[in-house]
Amino acid sequence: MPGSRLGEYFSVINFGESHGPAIGCVIDGCPPGMELSQEDIQKELDRRRPGTSRHVTQRKESDTVEILSGVYQGKTTGTPIALLIRNEDQRSKDYSAIENLFRPAHADYTYYKKFGIRDPRGGGRSSARLTAPTVAAGAVAKKWLEENLNIKIRACLINLGGIPLEVKDWTAPDNNPFFTADPEKVPELEACMDELRRAGDSAGSEIYVEAQGVPPGLGEPVYRRLDACLAYAFMGLNAVKGVEIGDGFEVVGSRGSLNADRMGTQYENGFASNHAGGILGGISTGAPITARVAIKPTPSIRQEMSTLTVDGKDTIVSTKGRHDPCVGIRATPILEALTALVLIDQVMAQRGQCGRI
Amino acid sequence: MPGSRLGEYFSVINFGESHGPAIGCVIDGCPPGMELSQEDIQKELDRRRPGTSRHVTQRKESDTVEILSGVYQGKTTGTPIALLIRNEDQRSKDYSAIENLFRPAHADYTYYKKFGIRDPRGGGRSSARLTAPTVAAGAVAKKWLEENLNIKIRACLINLGGIPLEVKDWTAPDNNPFFTADPEKVPELEACMDELRRAGDSAGSEIYVEAQGVPPGLGEPVYRRLDACLAYAFMGLNAVKGVEIGDGFEVVGSRGSLNADRMGTQYENGFASNHAGGILGGISTGAPITARVAIKPTPSIRQEMSTLTVDGKDTIVSTKGRHDPCVGIRATPILEALTALVLIDQVMAQRGQCGRI
Amino acid sequence: MPGSRLGEYFSVINFGESHGPAIGCVIDGCPPGMELSQEDIQKELDRRRPGTSRHVTQRKESDTVEILSGVYQGKTTGTPIALLIRNEDQRSKDYSAIENLFRPAHADYTYYKKFGIRDPRGGGRSSARLTAPTVAAGAVAKKWLEENLNIKIRACLINLGGIPLEVKDWTAPDNNPFFTADPEKVPELEACMDELRRAGDSAGSEIYVEAQGVPPGLGEPVYRRLDACLAYAFMGLNAVKGVEIGDGFEVVGSRGSLNADRMGTQYENGFASNHAGGILGGISTGAPITARVAIKPTPSIRQEMSTLTVDGKDTIVSTKGRHDPCVGIRATPILEALTALVLIDQVMAQRGQCGRI
Amino acid sequence: MPGSRLGEYFSVINFGESHGPAIGCVIDGCPPGMELSQEDIQKELDRRRPGTSRHVTQRKESDTVEILSGVYQGKTTGTPIALLIRNEDQRSKDYSAIENLFRPAHADYTYYKKFGIRDPRGGGRSSARLTAPTVAAGAVAKKWLEENLNIKIRACLINLGGIPLEVKDWTAPDNNPFFTADPEKVPELEACMDELRRAGDSAGSEIYVEAQGVPPGLGEPVYRRLDACLAYAFMGLNAVKGVEIGDGFEVVGSRGSLNADRMGTQYENGFASNHAGGILGGISTGAPITARVAIKPTPSIRQEMSTLTVDGKDTIVSTKGRHDPCVGIRATPILEALTALVLIDQVMAQRGQCGRI
Repeated sequence: MPGSRLGEYFSVINFGESHGPAIGCVIDGCPPGMELSQEDIQKELDRRRPGTSRHVTQRKESDTVEILSGVYQGKTTGTPIALLIRNEDQRSKDYSAIENLFRPAHADYTYYKKFGIRDPRGGGRSSARLTAPTVAAGAVAKKWLEENLNIKIRACLINLGGIPLEVKDWTAPDNNPFFTADPEKVPELEACMDELRRAGDSAGSEIYVEAQGVPPGLGEPVYRRLDACLAYAFMGLNAVKGVEIGDGFEVVGSRGSLNADRMGTQYENGFASNHAGGILGGISTGAPITARVAIKPTPSIRQEMSTLTVDGKDTIVSTKGRHDPCVGIRATPILEALTALVLIDQVMAQRGQCGRI
Repeated sequence: MPGSRLGEYFSVINFGESHGPAIGCVIDGCPPGMELSQEDIQKELDRRRPGTSRHVTQRKESDTVEILSGVYQGKTTGTPIALLIRNEDQRSKDYSAIENLFRPAHADYTYYKKFGIRDPRGGGRSSARLTAPTVAAGAVAKKWLEENLNIKIRACLINLGGIPLEVKDWTAPDNNPFFTADPEKVPELEACMDELRRAGDSAGSEIYVEAQGVPPGLGEPVYRRLDACLAYAFMGLNAVKGVEIGDGFEVVGSRGSLNADRMGTQYENGFASNHAGGILGGISTGAPITARVAIKPTPSIRQEMSTLTVDGKDTIVSTKGRHDPCVGIRATPILEALTALVLIDQVMAQRGQCGRI
Repeated sequence: MPGSRLGEYFSVINFGESHGPAIGCVIDGCPPGMELSQEDIQKELDRRRPGTSRHVTQRKESDTVEILSGVYQGKTTGTPIALLIRNEDQRSKDYSAIENLFRPAHADYTYYKKFGIRDPRGGGRSSARLTAPTVAAGAVAKKWLEENLNIKIRACLINLGGIPLEVKDWTAPDNNPFFTADPEKVPELEACMDELRRAGDSAGSEIYVEAQGVPPGLGEPVYRRLDACLAYAFMGLNAVKGVEIGDGFEVVGSRGSLNADRMGTQYENGFASNHAGGILGGISTGAPITARVAIKPTPSIRQEMSTLTVDGKDTIVSTKGRHDPCVGIRATPILEALTALVLIDQVMAQRGQCGRI
Repeated sequence: MPGSRLGEYFSVINFGESHGPAIGCVIDGCPPGMELSQEDIQKELDRRRPGTSRHVTQRKESDTVEILSGVYQGKTTGTPIALLIRNEDQRSKDYSAIENLFRPAHADYTYYKKFGIRDPRGGGRSSARLTAPTVAAGAVAKKWLEENLNIKIRACLINLGGIPLEVKDWTAPDNNPFFTADPEKVPELEACMDELRRAGDSAGSEIYVEAQGVPPGLGEPVYRRLDACLAYAFMGLNAVKGVEIGDGFEVVGSRGSLNADRMGTQYENGFASNHAGGILGGISTGAPITARVAIKPTPSIRQEMSTLTVDGKDTIVSTKGRHDPCVGIRATPILEALTALVLIDQVMAQRGQCGRI
């Protein structure tokens, strides 16, 4: 199977390049009969859209989505839903300087090595712009999960370049440019971002994701486990270098007596704690799914770095295009979308095999 | 696709339960013409086998593998390779006490919720015993990768219950019961394990994996990236709660200027450093693939814990079967096997699409 | 896996409805580095296009294809190729009369039963219009197969409503409105078609397909055989009710001594005859692949037929829209496309597993 | 995906060679909670078993199946069901004479060309013996379909070497060695078979399959249609060269006014006739699924034929092993099994996407 498909049952096929005519996706397998409008999808795209604050890339894209198929009289028909987003602000001239070299820590080199050819305009296929179709498909999945199973998915920034952020206030993430649930820290984050821009540098970040209301029983061991599928989807997102479920790396120094979530009739969902992050043996427990994701600093920085030309010669590069000094900020809605896509796929697998959720 | 398959091209289908008649796997898609003997597979199984030291489960299993198909006159024919391991020491009586309850932090509850039925004998399908077929299949993949592409995969324990271990000496892991490359720490590890047994407790652990000689160009963005596939395979392993590629969670507090691996003609593989862990944009760079995995403490401990019966009543459980106080120890060869399975699958995908490695 | 994908390696995802905004497909897995222009695809679409003679539907569609992605500077990049065709002549009013009933022998009833909802405009998703994206994807596959392996695929009509047609002259099919290689029969076919129109009726047909230059070794037994994949693709085409490979149903009355193709050094490709149609044991032999396909009469006819309303009441229907009196005519280029898609997929599978064609 | 898997949801992976240690399969995705015993599977295997009459191969195989996993206390658990059949009567010496040559019309040549290596013992992987695991898996599917949806699948021989057989008496097929429903013709068939044996020749055959009680709504257009999946499964069976659904090739000379099945409240399932064979637009209608399959004469015959050696030299071969003079006879239970496997897969797909049958 080629690599641009996510999901076996609710299957998303992603297409496009940063500076080609359009990007988009086809959803094959969406359940029929759900109300779906352009606006349902647009509102999630708008959360991810570039240019919404001075802290993210200034590329101007309306990211207007068009539903090409799969919806009749406002309802999904069960046939493929094709979603199209035209690229508008392509400014390819920005990239002419880097056409013949490989930017360090970027996918330029590896795409070239893989295919023997690459589209250098804005990173081509490797651009984070290709997360927009993921968000669009995720909007459909999220809506279905919420309407049919009352599953709520949310995410927030919990670290920016070393500044830890608490998960205090879930009304906050959609009301500040950083998607943080720790709104008092916004001035500190702004100062950090301004400093990064001045220094021509970038920073890493960490995001927390959770899904509430997930019924027990989702996940297909021994390999296609729910945690494995989340790790696949999250690690497959641009710049992600680490994924944790539940306590994550904290389990290394822990003990079985501390880590095991006791069960009892008095507890919500049956569990006294949730070190497991809502997944045991690769199957959901009914407790909230919790995960954390580490995102590396944007590799495109203004500072000069040694690198190689396409012809294998030493050279120096300084990237001057419009880039997010912290790609992790806009990753928040994307991780929600990926969570929704993984969950709906497992819901459908479970219905298929066991005839029930 | 149901969950017991790993890999699209070099496809492994795993079957069996801890205390059923047998476990095993079918490899569909192995390249033809490779010499393969029972011994090639057995030697990797022996590294994972229970009962090899007092620090792992005392279950007695010879784990003798039988090649049922796919090999003729000592060579792979390109047709499915079926591998069979009979269960020998099943002692199901050990588990009668827990038949009607759910052990905390174990998959008992979730399997029951998923399927409406479960095989309680030794954890049934959720048992870590099912990693043996993965290791058997991995042995085939590892041999092919080494013989055809000179890829070397190795792993070692780097933390046991909070005791950090260095990667000092790669001759050590196969010569101590902990798979550590820091042999001076063995007495400390033994003391820790003895203490855990006395306390009826268990500990988490961390493992480091690396693959050397991986050619650039492996991985299929935008979703089926090499890092995503590794995260999928690793997070899909029993008890794993975190996966890092390259610098992993360290990138959160880092800067682009620090994290970006500079390139230059004077460096091996072209890279001055390897923060990326050998993967950029989801495709291998040619530098070593590096990863770290967090494994939770064994949930089966002797200490008493509150839990629920199958009928939904409160109860207390203390697990008395034969268990590894640290499941992570035996995970070392399994993670090597999973790495091999992910890599061979991507090698074949790359040959299929691009006609070359 | 949902149903709108064809191919595992060269994977085509089809989307759209007859009267929605657009139809199209995404090709995931196309080999990189092939020259590809809009014209390469358009010329195949033009062969299938409606309205080209008075013997096919008079719907006016330019069927202009736009390449949205996967091509850079005129060459395929190895990333997904999205192809878009806007629907132009939608005239939905033609279909208002049939919105609340099921047309006999049409998919109206079964789509409604499957999804609980259907798009009645022009048959919605079940329309033969959805073969256009198949032809577009097939154009890409055909070009690659011809340029890289010198494989030639061609098809022609061999029966129209009971009139047998010989395979005499391969220059003819693209120069008459029936795709027949028996050009002397064209007047007879025209008379038959005119008679069908007058009678408000339609006729079945039969098409012959062959592929020359197919290397031996393509096909993946025991299930994903080359003949099985061709049968899948062909039987999956609208209105097809029968598929034969090689001698097809003639083998029933034959004998082993007659049917077995003798081998010898003096024969082209090594075979004295080709009863097998170029496939033995599900794998190509190197001899031409030959197949025949039976296509039922268009179910949409002017004659009155008894049927059911959506509410389950008896009624009468007479279909007055613009329909092909013989859908098989335009199936010729579609069957070529399907053959190309099956072959390229098996070529890539073979490269992936065996490292060679 | 390599070729030894059938089905996406109810997924069967087949392994083994004719003269290796064992053959078998793994079913991944079987619904949990169904009662399943060794006997349920054995009874279907016994119908296909060699050596049951003088008209089929005299190879002595008990074909005893062992359930290795996936069943606990007599019920399926939802985890993989591995089924093992040991090869017993391997008599490999029979095949030494043909080790260095390619038998005409057999898969010897194509396997060798594909893999560069082949197992010549009894045809190795290409042997019809590999249909036994298909029958075993089909027995599980058939039982589930019958118990849960009251679907009945049956097949019978309708032509042997040119002798047409009627579908008169469904109690007959399991009570004569030819699986014919036209028992008065048995003496004629016996005479034909005896004559074939004397002549050292073999004959083709045709089989009719039907499934009753199939609910409407199964099938996933535009490609993974129910008819496409049946054609795939049937054409993938050894020696099959043609597949028809419903009226099959008769539609070629038919008219829309004759072929269209009228609908009405007075008819069973709503249809006045069943030219469509229970499938419209690739989706089941609720009427019986009907199909016919053409099977070529056994290629292994005693008569001498010219052929090539592995080294490419001309030679003569006469096959003296134990072969069925008409392979089609034993295909009857296999086609039932394949029908069951296709149907259960589509039932599960339908439950997964639409949440209901």
